[in-house]
Amino acid sequence: MAELAQLIDSEVFLAYATYTTIVLLKMMLMSVTTAFFRMTRKAFSNPEDTAAFGKGENAKKYLRTDPDVERVRRGHLNDLENIVPFIGIGLLYALSGPALSTALLHFRIFVGARIFHTIAYLTPLPQPSRGLSWAAGYAVTISMAYRVLTTGLYL
Amino acid sequence: MAELAQLIDSEVFLAYATYTTIVLLKMMLMSVTTAFFRMTRKAFSNPEDTAAFGKGENAKKYLRTDPDVERVRRGHLNDLENIVPFIGIGLLYALSGPALSTALLHFRIFVGARIFHTIAYLTPLPQPSRGLSWAAGYAVTISMAYRVLTTGLYL
Amino acid sequence: MAELAQLIDSEVFLAYATYTTIVLLKMMLMSVTTAFFRMTRKAFSNPEDTAAFGKGENAKKYLRTDPDVERVRRGHLNDLENIVPFIGIGLLYALSGPALSTALLHFRIFVGARIFHTIAYLTPLPQPSRGLSWAAGYAVTISMAYRVLTTGLYL
Repeated sequence: MAELAQLIDSEVFLAYATYTTIVLLKMMLMSVTTAFFRMTRKAFSNPEDTAAFGKGENAKKYLRTDPDVERVRRGHLNDLENIVPFIGIGLLYALSGPALSTALLHFRIFVGARIFHTIAYLTPLPQPSRGLSWAAGYAVTISMAYRVLTTGLYL
Repeated sequence: MAELAQLIDSEVFLAYATYTTIVLLKMMLMSVTTAFFRMTRKAFSNPEDTAAFGKGENAKKYLRTDPDVERVRRGHLNDLENIVPFIGIGLLYALSGPALSTALLHFRIFVGARIFHTIAYLTPLPQPSRGLSWAAGYAVTISMAYRVLTTGLYL
Repeated sequence: MAELAQLIDSEVFLAYATYTTIVLLKMMLMSVTTAFFRMTRKAFSNPEDTAAFGKGENAKKYLRTDPDVERVRRGHLNDLENIVPFIGIGLLYALSGPALSTALLHFRIFVGARIFHTIAYLTPLPQPSRGLSWAAGYAVTISMAYRVLTTGLYL
């Protein structure tokens, strides 16, 4: 990991910035999707969110869970669980001096896999669609972690 | 995104470091708040956590959910969902060479909005207090992402 | 925080990269552990995941929560809540020019504490094992945040 400071000016770092931003924006879409399903399904978690539907018992019936809302929320949490390692390990990977083509391959597979994962989760597509897209992103992150640890291990 | 390495020495980067640390400390407070409500409400998730209250059926009754505990936990998860994109996109934004005053505006609005979001969630304040503070933080992150993608897109 | 760009080439940064990667890989293990418990306990959240067990009512009975699965999921969420602040604040801490030995102490305690936390959560060990390991990681992150804010505060 010599000359890390130069690597931050590299095309690899620009590619990391681009794909990280795209995948985080995709994750942020899950918040809006949850809000959309909460409103169309009328299923809320907080009493103050149902005040617009009236008072008392009339509003209370909207404090409930809905299968579609819960599905989006599971997808969102799965994003967090997988995108956080990608961002952290990916930054260090981008600074480990990989070949541009190799780095692009990693970033593209990860982001493509996570977009497909969301489609597979929300449609929902039959398994193993969701499982395989999860595994593809997971494998990419492991591969980047392997390079980080073999390039600059310092225990 | 030329001369990124110099940008890491900039005041913008120091401001990013400051506001990121503050908002992460705020998020960490949610853990302590959850623990506080779990103890005062005597509502736990794990059998081993209730051992101090006695054995058998006596302890089992504390394995329950409590509305206040669940409220803090939802606020904590909402923090994770929104602060993770801010940290990731904000780092790249800080390296994209924005004007210091513009960057400070972004960071201050985000951190202010998230602090107000927590107050609105835990009080709770009537809607749309919580919704608007969420939207303000969301808009700031989108605005930073827009700059990152228009400054150094590399697909 | 002068000469941050040089600090990225330091041994402290390499140590940060190593320990961050290790603790993120540990967190990623939680996904596999959840999948393992879901399959052995036959407890799923999504109807499409139970299709392999047959159709209709026969498959529906596997759409349930299981105490072991929920325990792993709580451990995974606790990881997210604590490792995200460590990664964000730790990166800024590594760029704040700490002594190598001090930085290593911070990183090693955090990663050790989180590994022990997982063991304490999944075994489960009697309290306060889990509580103390959580507190150790929390204290390390606070200590790093203190240094970041006292070295380069820019509000």
